[in-house]
Amino acid sequence: MYPDSIKSLIESFKFLPGIGEKTAERLAFSVLELEDEQVEFFSDSLKDVKNNIHKCEICNTLTENDRCYICSDDSRTCDLLCVVEDTKNVFLFEKLGMFHGKYHVLDGLISPLDGINPEDIGLDRLLDRISKENFKEIIFAFKPSIEGETTSLYIKRILDGLDVKTTRLASGVPIGADMEYVDSLTLERALNDRKEIE
Amino acid sequence: MYPDSIKSLIESFKFLPGIGEKTAERLAFSVLELEDEQVEFFSDSLKDVKNNIHKCEICNTLTENDRCYICSDDSRTCDLLCVVEDTKNVFLFEKLGMFHGKYHVLDGLISPLDGINPEDIGLDRLLDRISKENFKEIIFAFKPSIEGETTSLYIKRILDGLDVKTTRLASGVPIGADMEYVDSLTLERALNDRKEIE
Repeated sequence: MYPDSIKSLIESFKFLPGIGEKTAERLAFSVLELEDEQVEFFSDSLKDVKNNIHKCEICNTLTENDRCYICSDDSRTCDLLCVVEDTKNVFLFEKLGMFHGKYHVLDGLISPLDGINPEDIGLDRLLDRISKENFKEIIFAFKPSIEGETTSLYIKRILDGLDVKTTRLASGVPIGADMEYVDSLTLERALNDRKEIE
Repeated sequence: MYPDSIKSLIESFKFLPGIGEKTAERLAFSVLELEDEQVEFFSDSLKDVKNNIHKCEICNTLTENDRCYICSDDSRTCDLLCVVEDTKNVFLFEKLGMFHGKYHVLDGLISPLDGINPEDIGLDRLLDRISKENFKEIIFAFKPSIEGETTSLYIKRILDGLDVKTTRLASGVPIGADMEYVDSLTLERALNDRKEIE
């Protein structure tokens, strides 16, 4: 019913997560309203992202160079390593602008139920790096979940004996949250991890 | 902070209506997870849509040929013309599969408040077509709104004297709607347009 090129564009939008038939149709038609240069730019950006982006040889984050801008930045402190489960989280912390250490990006978290075992998430590269660089503290910045806990504990056990502190992000009541909407696990953790008022 | 090609792709997604910074970031990162062929296909589809799609020389709907498949289809009845405000609506009716007449797509609706006057919506081509083809009925399938009413009335007045019936879509309570959520204008129209039970 639709002309072929509109049909192809609708199919293309449906490759993206969370975009169904209706939204894909709406977006495809909206492309017709864009300027020629915008569509050209869009089309080129798609190819460029696939061609130019790869993983940093040191920390595994996404970059256009061999090393990402963080690993290439000598002004950052080499004592602190923040381990994340996904490149996106590096950018989340960088947006905050308050962490000045290094990062390491795993390929996900250990999740035996989903068939994701320690050897699947690139732990060897992380351990290799920890053994070579002199980190004083490793921060596990995973999402609070069984997978996050499992992965932290697994790595911590391997690091036993090394002179390195391991920490995790604080869990607790989010700032601004209504107490009644906080789930019981979070509340339990917030109570256990309570801090003395100074 | 983001590598340049990711930045460009985020900007590209933001060209699209209803897509803000956060969604654009999410979509851009999801492109990295797609297969190379999918990204290639997506990128090509964008360019193809801009290069191949233009308006049917007869009915103004979007097509890849000089004439759209509806205008080229001799089996369709030539008595009925359905006038819509946007190409998308042609496809809406075609999906229903119960209308077998012809279509004409205006370039929007008359809306003096927005500075859109009768000469801006391609009425001359519609009138020219009506004077040449022998339609028995013209259906105005515009959205029920002041602009829709204005445009229908304006065209109807010009057609006065011609032997052609003009109709509009029925307005009323949508099937399945809860009565309490139906707005008062719709309810008023539904009451005025009530139909005898046969």
